[in-house]
Amino acid sequence: MTTGIRHISILGSTGSIGCNTLKVVEHLGNMRVVAMAAGRNIRLFAGQVARFSPKMAACADEISAVGLAEELKRLGASKPRIVYGIEGLVEAATQPEADLVVSATVGAVGFIPTLRAIESGKNVALANKETLVMAGKLITEAAAASGAVILPVDSEHNAIHQCLRGENMEEVRRLILTASGGPFRTKTKEEIINADRESALNHPNWKMGEKITIDSATLMNKGLEVIEAHWLFGLAPEKISVIIHPQSVIHSMVEMIDGSIIAQLGVTDMKHAIQYALTYPERRENCLPPLDLAAIGSLAFEEPDTERFPCLALAYEALKRSGTAPAALNAANEEAVKAFLAGQIRFGQIAEINRTVLENHSVREPSAIEDVLEADADARKRAIIEIEKSAAMDSRQRVGAN
Amino acid sequence: MTTGIRHISILGSTGSIGCNTLKVVEHLGNMRVVAMAAGRNIRLFAGQVARFSPKMAACADEISAVGLAEELKRLGASKPRIVYGIEGLVEAATQPEADLVVSATVGAVGFIPTLRAIESGKNVALANKETLVMAGKLITEAAAASGAVILPVDSEHNAIHQCLRGENMEEVRRLILTASGGPFRTKTKEEIINADRESALNHPNWKMGEKITIDSATLMNKGLEVIEAHWLFGLAPEKISVIIHPQSVIHSMVEMIDGSIIAQLGVTDMKHAIQYALTYPERRENCLPPLDLAAIGSLAFEEPDTERFPCLALAYEALKRSGTAPAALNAANEEAVKAFLAGQIRFGQIAEINRTVLENHSVREPSAIEDVLEADADARKRAIIEIEKSAAMDSRQRVGAN
Repeated sequence: MTTGIRHISILGSTGSIGCNTLKVVEHLGNMRVVAMAAGRNIRLFAGQVARFSPKMAACADEISAVGLAEELKRLGASKPRIVYGIEGLVEAATQPEADLVVSATVGAVGFIPTLRAIESGKNVALANKETLVMAGKLITEAAAASGAVILPVDSEHNAIHQCLRGENMEEVRRLILTASGGPFRTKTKEEIINADRESALNHPNWKMGEKITIDSATLMNKGLEVIEAHWLFGLAPEKISVIIHPQSVIHSMVEMIDGSIIAQLGVTDMKHAIQYALTYPERRENCLPPLDLAAIGSLAFEEPDTERFPCLALAYEALKRSGTAPAALNAANEEAVKAFLAGQIRFGQIAEINRTVLENHSVREPSAIEDVLEADADARKRAIIEIEKSAAMDSRQRVGAN
Repeated sequence: MTTGIRHISILGSTGSIGCNTLKVVEHLGNMRVVAMAAGRNIRLFAGQVARFSPKMAACADEISAVGLAEELKRLGASKPRIVYGIEGLVEAATQPEADLVVSATVGAVGFIPTLRAIESGKNVALANKETLVMAGKLITEAAAASGAVILPVDSEHNAIHQCLRGENMEEVRRLILTASGGPFRTKTKEEIINADRESALNHPNWKMGEKITIDSATLMNKGLEVIEAHWLFGLAPEKISVIIHPQSVIHSMVEMIDGSIIAQLGVTDMKHAIQYALTYPERRENCLPPLDLAAIGSLAFEEPDTERFPCLALAYEALKRSGTAPAALNAANEEAVKAFLAGQIRFGQIAEINRTVLENHSVREPSAIEDVLEADADARKRAIIEIEKSAAMDSRQRVGAN
């Protein structure tokens, strides 16, 4: 059953998906990591490079690159070719030997390298949802042109990919993305607006990075997934729905035109979807405990509430406006979440900033990367202005209250 | 999308599956019923024949055949060729024009006609689970030889068939059949043993015939389905498990070697599985309301209890003993259920009779129909003796109590 060695390049190896990918690589045995890229967590990155001996390693910047070389020397590990910056990331994404690129950087930085990997015809295991959210049209056109296959690593899209095996896309009635509802599912609107950093980072089911955990709390993550699903599976927004399912056991579903619903269930561990993408189209024994439904006992479902979670509706709105609107919303959201994590704005202001930026964005149809990057930059500028306004207003209110 | 007219033959048209099949045929529009067979419900059968104008109609016996002719005359309907008896049923099953035979008779009577349909290379939509339970080896060998495709209509096997689209059987870890648990799921052992006819026939989710409803209450139905799944999907008994799921929303599941579980969900209406079998490999819009998970709210799961429901364990035991053992268990169960419905024995005695017959059955490897029929006949004889003993003991106990 085991095919030959598969060569992979991992972008974002020190993140949550990256670390899990390396665990899956070790479990599977027939994978060879030929390129790795990471940001500024040099200590962790050096350990990974020493262990997996890629041909090249890409760092965020020159300082990190120097740091990596020193750390590898300290570890007595052999030194690969070390590159840095966006050019370095692109080089890792297009490494000639790589069969598959795992795109797992956080946020917009992954966009260009992923596009280059796809253009060079490499299959991409895509965990960086911003890539499709920002430029789904460019990415899917590039994949169609080069023949690259995009394998989603997000558990929801990975589930849908599994549900669609052997199905005809013309016979799909709708996709149903499940959402845990996040830590504020049962909270009031008032409680959500004023939620603090700690409770927002306390996701009930999944251990993930900080950015995506906050996005899960606002349901923006689900909104970005709706946009991602639109591009991955080629369905109109009204054929993509969301259901709240607090246990996250059903990872997502597909409803066919005959009313049949095909669902994919599993343990809430990202290694599952990662392994699926790494071994596709084969399946291999994994290293996770099996799902025990009788022990779980019960699975619940409810409709999402866009009154308390306006970010979900904003994502549908961006998809409806189309063109550069999703890129603008995504950029605004990245800035707003960063500001919330830095203590600059309150939780409820994330949605407000996103809404203001989206409503003021002049939508264009992107014909090249530059259009997307411009929309991204404009939206960030506007978001930062809004963040400063909000922060200033808050501090005036606090002064007033004293 | 719509292919040409599909010609079908329906065995058991006046039963629950048969009536639903005719509703689906009317909904789909591109089906032509070329042969129909029914038992003794002549009034209903005549109406169906008048409406669907098959080329031939098969009745249980000569009296029914005469009655059908008279009833059709009374209705002013044109008369098809009318046949009767097992030969008539076989003629309906092998009608030259039929592309697909819906095998939906109740109990062992469907076995020979279904085998003949498969031998003649016709695809079979199989609702008659006794056929596979009695002679799974002969049936699957015949299908392999003739190239006939068996499409399961039982909702559980139909679900598994859907879950396996696009999957590799070598990558299946196990099948998970869901069971509603029946009307006695929450009852004590004592309450179950003494349950009356009315409560046993009160199935919580599915409207079905009497025999299968009683089998659902004893969990023998699930046991027979385990045997059926063994033959349909070629997996060892230890790779087929059962989970209690009272809502019957998940119709069944498949666990893959990578731990991923693919499930099929739908409304609890048999028309869904019937339509799937009729239109396969295509899917078509159906006439059922969509499944609303948020309205259902929650799905529960628990391990089955073979202490209170010994028939489930008996089925695994029969599958383990192999050969003619499942046929003997099935025959004993048919007689025991008939006796329970006739008020001759108590509910708890169904399992006792089944166990006695199975334990006393001399297993042989069936090489032809005759071996199966002999095992069936022997088991029935033994079951009837046990039923009479039980009934006599009960009446003595009643006399003693008075």
